[in-house]
Amino acid sequence: MTIDFKRATDGGTPEDPAGDIGRAAHEAVLRLQDTICDALARVDGRATFKEDPWERPGGGGGRSRVLSDGAVFEKAGVSVSAVHGEVPAVMRDRMSGDGPVFFATGISLVLHPLNPHAPTTHANFRFIRRGKTMWFGGGADLTPYVLYPEDAAHFHAALSAPCDAASPAFYPFFKAWCDRYFWNTHRDEGRGIGGIFFDDLHSGGTVTDGTARMAVDGLDFEALWLFWIAAGESFVKAYVPIVERRKDTAWDEALRHWQLQRRGRYVEFNLLHDRGTKFGLQTNGRIESIFMSLPPLVRWDYGVEATPGSPEEALIDVLRSPRAWL
Amino acid sequence: MTIDFKRATDGGTPEDPAGDIGRAAHEAVLRLQDTICDALARVDGRATFKEDPWERPGGGGGRSRVLSDGAVFEKAGVSVSAVHGEVPAVMRDRMSGDGPVFFATGISLVLHPLNPHAPTTHANFRFIRRGKTMWFGGGADLTPYVLYPEDAAHFHAALSAPCDAASPAFYPFFKAWCDRYFWNTHRDEGRGIGGIFFDDLHSGGTVTDGTARMAVDGLDFEALWLFWIAAGESFVKAYVPIVERRKDTAWDEALRHWQLQRRGRYVEFNLLHDRGTKFGLQTNGRIESIFMSLPPLVRWDYGVEATPGSPEEALIDVLRSPRAWL
Repeated sequence: MTIDFKRATDGGTPEDPAGDIGRAAHEAVLRLQDTICDALARVDGRATFKEDPWERPGGGGGRSRVLSDGAVFEKAGVSVSAVHGEVPAVMRDRMSGDGPVFFATGISLVLHPLNPHAPTTHANFRFIRRGKTMWFGGGADLTPYVLYPEDAAHFHAALSAPCDAASPAFYPFFKAWCDRYFWNTHRDEGRGIGGIFFDDLHSGGTVTDGTARMAVDGLDFEALWLFWIAAGESFVKAYVPIVERRKDTAWDEALRHWQLQRRGRYVEFNLLHDRGTKFGLQTNGRIESIFMSLPPLVRWDYGVEATPGSPEEALIDVLRSPRAWL
Repeated sequence: MTIDFKRATDGGTPEDPAGDIGRAAHEAVLRLQDTICDALARVDGRATFKEDPWERPGGGGGRSRVLSDGAVFEKAGVSVSAVHGEVPAVMRDRMSGDGPVFFATGISLVLHPLNPHAPTTHANFRFIRRGKTMWFGGGADLTPYVLYPEDAAHFHAALSAPCDAASPAFYPFFKAWCDRYFWNTHRDEGRGIGGIFFDDLHSGGTVTDGTARMAVDGLDFEALWLFWIAAGESFVKAYVPIVERRKDTAWDEALRHWQLQRRGRYVEFNLLHDRGTKFGLQTNGRIESIFMSLPPLVRWDYGVEATPGSPEEALIDVLRSPRAWL
């Protein structure tokens, strides 16, 4: 598919909220969903993805894919949606752009491996437009149950590559943003060891994570598009080698217990702090899609403390003090 | 202990935030904790409660008791706290009464039986004062995984007794309040089959659940105190006979699976909607105490639907349309 970036701002009207560029973004995330699901099903070797297409009453719909009880993945959800319609009342002033209609398409995934040595991961890549204004959001982050610094370094290196190709300022900014975003404030610890996170990434002007600002005025829309596509494509390279090398490591019930307790922190983040979840619930999003991210099996025990000097404590230390991995 | 209700408003000052009446309320919930824990340990027969005393940096503390991996209870938490200090900034305008200091004491419990035929239950009875203004809150509610209408009717009947003794208006009002409060708005279903719920119950004036109002001007402080004590004492009568008659019913893995999925809804309510949890987190409450209510083991699966005509569907029907049990 060739995109005529000079005509990228066509559309964005009530008659055509997506425009050609919106349709191209939708095709891109659908292709990425195929690529990622193929790679994950190959890793799993036993279970396959079940597809669940759905429609949104207000306009658009989605294609959810879930793999359950696999040899490697206890639960893996990879969902694509493309929705359009009137800008919800709660978003009218908070959303960039002008006009009554929006279009949003994206891919969202959360993978929960069975083996506690293999980390959970989340990724999301989205394109949103309102009228003539268009922007990108996304990122990927890793939540290990056992700390393997070489896995963390590999994950960050793979995600930094598309960032660096776009701008040397991207990776440091998006890495810090990720650490800040996936923060369980009530526990004062990170959900995981980070990755990259970006939102509201427009061409021209600046982008902010709420505390710092970064200029993106040297990059036009086409450059941001190419970055966004490359970031999405980097996910398989970032995650699959890690799960490949950890999926057969022996584990015992004590480590499984720890994994299930840590998954509780994942749920706490998603339900208490995640802005995507909040937005989805406020705008009557599709519950099954919003909660696809929740782990299959979770524990909450009273007064869980990592033993001093244990691998669990080493993990917690890093979650409390995010590290530079590169 | 004799309480001189004519002197109930003594205290409520920075030097003595609790006053004699606050200390009497604290003693009452400590006694209730003993009574309830003794009854539950007898039902369990195997595990015992472990006590975890804690102090609050701002003033006061608590006595948490947790029973884990029992023969009957997979997790049972019964916690008492008595805290005082400066009214938190977020509460200054929202809290009844006047003055810079508050005192609050209460008992809070959540019981998660192992057997899916035995329902989960939650209860809370609290006394709060700010200056000379004092009020009561509390209630108890039941969350079954299998619907036994006779259990629901028994639970409601036991809780209605102390209500009816105080005022014929109490039970209908507090029953409706409970149904409204424990509502998982994002699923449009109740957390359970209800019970009673009340908050901000002052002598004189009215009490409101946010939509309706009920006059309580015929009842003085002593009458409300006696109601509050009796409501707390009714909990064992309301719940213990139910768990006694369900704890040995045979269950299979499919029902256990359903129980774990339904426990997911419990977590969703507590983290997304419960005002107690929100208040606790906003005011830097003790995390372990706030999250003591979360179930020990929980599942989230994609696209869970009750089979038409199944017992699961019968339960869901009642959760979606709260029933009059008496």
